Amino acid sequence: MARLSARTGDLHASPVREMLNVSLRPGAISFAGGLPSPETFAGLDLPPPPRDLLQYGPTEGEPPLCERIAAELRDLGVDTTAERVMILAGSQQGIDLAAKLVVDPGATVAVEAPAYLAALQVFRFFGARFSTLDRADPASGWGGDATPRLAYVTPTFQNPTGGCWSAQERAALAQACQAHEVILFEDDPYRDLVYEDCERTPICAGMSGGGSWIYQGSFSKTVAPGLRLGFLTASEDLFPLLVRLKQASDLHTNRLSQWMVLQYLQDPGRAARMEGVRALYRRKRDLFDAALTRHLGNLASWTTPPGGLFFWVALAGGVDPQGLLTRALERGVLFTPGSHFMADGGACPAIRLNFSLAAPGDVERGLAVIGDLLRERATA
Amino acid sequence: MARLSARTGDLHASPVREMLNVSLRPGAISFAGGLPSPETFAGLDLPPPPRDLLQYGPTEGEPPLCERIAAELRDLGVDTTAERVMILAGSQQGIDLAAKLVVDPGATVAVEAPAYLAALQVFRFFGARFSTLDRADPASGWGGDATPRLAYVTPTFQNPTGGCWSAQERAALAQACQAHEVILFEDDPYRDLVYEDCERTPICAGMSGGGSWIYQGSFSKTVAPGLRLGFLTASEDLFPLLVRLKQASDLHTNRLSQWMVLQYLQDPGRAARMEGVRALYRRKRDLFDAALTRHLGNLASWTTPPGGLFFWVALAGGVDPQGLLTRALERGVLFTPGSHFMADGGACPAIRLNFSLAAPGDVERGLAVIGDLLRERATA
Repeated sequence: MARLSARTGDLHASPVREMLNVSLRPGAISFAGGLPSPETFAGLDLPPPPRDLLQYGPTEGEPPLCERIAAELRDLGVDTTAERVMILAGSQQGIDLAAKLVVDPGATVAVEAPAYLAALQVFRFFGARFSTLDRADPASGWGGDATPRLAYVTPTFQNPTGGCWSAQERAALAQACQAHEVILFEDDPYRDLVYEDCERTPICAGMSGGGSWIYQGSFSKTVAPGLRLGFLTASEDLFPLLVRLKQASDLHTNRLSQWMVLQYLQDPGRAARMEGVRALYRRKRDLFDAALTRHLGNLASWTTPPGGLFFWVALAGGVDPQGLLTRALERGVLFTPGSHFMADGGACPAIRLNFSLAAPGDVERGLAVIGDLLRERATA
Repeated sequence: MARLSARTGDLHASPVREMLNVSLRPGAISFAGGLPSPETFAGLDLPPPPRDLLQYGPTEGEPPLCERIAAELRDLGVDTTAERVMILAGSQQGIDLAAKLVVDPGATVAVEAPAYLAALQVFRFFGARFSTLDRADPASGWGGDATPRLAYVTPTFQNPTGGCWSAQERAALAQACQAHEVILFEDDPYRDLVYEDCERTPICAGMSGGGSWIYQGSFSKTVAPGLRLGFLTASEDLFPLLVRLKQASDLHTNRLSQWMVLQYLQDPGRAARMEGVRALYRRKRDLFDAALTRHLGNLASWTTPPGGLFFWVALAGGVDPQGLLTRALERGVLFTPGSHFMADGGACPAIRLNFSLAAPGDVERGLAVIGDLLRERATA
């Protein structure tokens, strides 16, 4: 028997990826993953890339792309420079790098409840324990051994809830991290998918006075996920270490994708294209909201998300989401049960529904199935 | 002060990458890195890729590419199928995944002396101890706690020595790994850069009778490194775990690069192009060999490598390679000291010289500098 690392003992398949595989079957209606709508992807009608991009490149990324991203981050109030921006093979990679940097077995990571499931998996793999972050009073319970090393948050259009932190909540976490020397890890992949005005200032913009932080973003939702491109910036103490971890992970990110994304960022049509993306998703969200009301109106409750790709739907009357999923799968409908987003893996009487991918007819049929299953149970 | 993981204490910059940065300065002559010659890169004159590649894709990789690679591996005698091939973001990623899978702090990894430095770094980062693999008798010293979990080897045109294992040595390691339940990790990025006939059968081809193994290859040397594309296959017990680790690392590899590499693999001109690549490198190797004889003939010894990208040159008379490098850098010449390839970081009276990148005039000037420095020392 091959001897494997202790951390491998907890190596479960990602529920999201398993769902993705099922969702690719013909006829399935998936509200489970987080796939963007292909209509939103940038085009491929670009000139041929420069041939010198075929050689190995710098670990940090292509300098012109880093410069462009740094300038846009400074416009958001983030204290950074091109020399402190690194291009990632998607923002999932940033989670792996941050976990390598910070998480020893038994180290505490503070997370929201619920929190992004693929981040929970990576932190857990490296041996993290979790504590729950209280948005209203983030440092409550911190002090001594109870102080986490890292606070991982997606404050803008959170996955799974779709919610957005207020300015006060953002300031409170920045101050708590500074006061307790906790590393802030702010994951911000959805910030450009905004459908209603809300506070979106990065939390790390409030940490220019000191403290350690990592901020990351993604082009998966604004250009195309298949390119696998994201970026991070970090405080000066952490950035060089993250570069070395990236170098050990894959040397550097694909240079052709970096070049392509730079073309999209420089494209004069970019703002109009993104306005179109937001309008498309706003329409899809509103259609989904109306269909939810029709089919689940008195069986569940939810807040219409001001941005992002998900509805977080609380089920009334003690329904077990996992049991509901089992019955829904038999009828070809997928969604993600809330417990997958809980750091302790505990019960959570909610489900996450993605509204970006399914066509209107499928939204109608899929939510009707879920509504029927809930009603069958209510009258059983 | 941010609290970081214990493993971060050993987070040194990669000597190879630091050298790469210096080598990009105008006028420098670099024998230090492992950059392929840009003349060998495949062209970019491809039709536009299918638009559906812009969406998220499977963690394992694009099925047609996995099928093609599996078929070519079976032709080499490797027991695999398309369902057991995974596309990597370069083969450096495979080292990270294997280390995550196997290496706990204190676990023993058997490596060659010298061995590929970026693999040593990753294993060391995850806490490995090292033992030295004896090619003639690989299981010597194995047994009980002294048995390594993993044996990491690059048996074909090894980095740094350029050497190639004999059929007997390959069979002995396969048998030793099977007998002692040691995972074989065979890294094979140079196999197609062959200039003289020699044994190249993958070691893992001798393990179809049982045992745990990982085999990986790269397109960085045969297509282009900037695409960051490699692949691995593994025994049935390990493969699903490696897929989950890949998923947690970056979800999946860039799909456009995967599509591009598939076009190159299917190109009817591929065999002729690779023959041209080999002829180019054979000429560069022979020119380098002749220049070495002219400038270092009585100051050093080496074996002409039958493949790969490097000469491994033993310095006569107790010269310190690090001191030699310091003086060479002052004159704009870079190479990699042998100690970087030693698992224990100990002294090694040899240097690694890359012959694939430098132009003939630079080879002449650069080796003349090294020869002069060695002669100055000999007459001092």
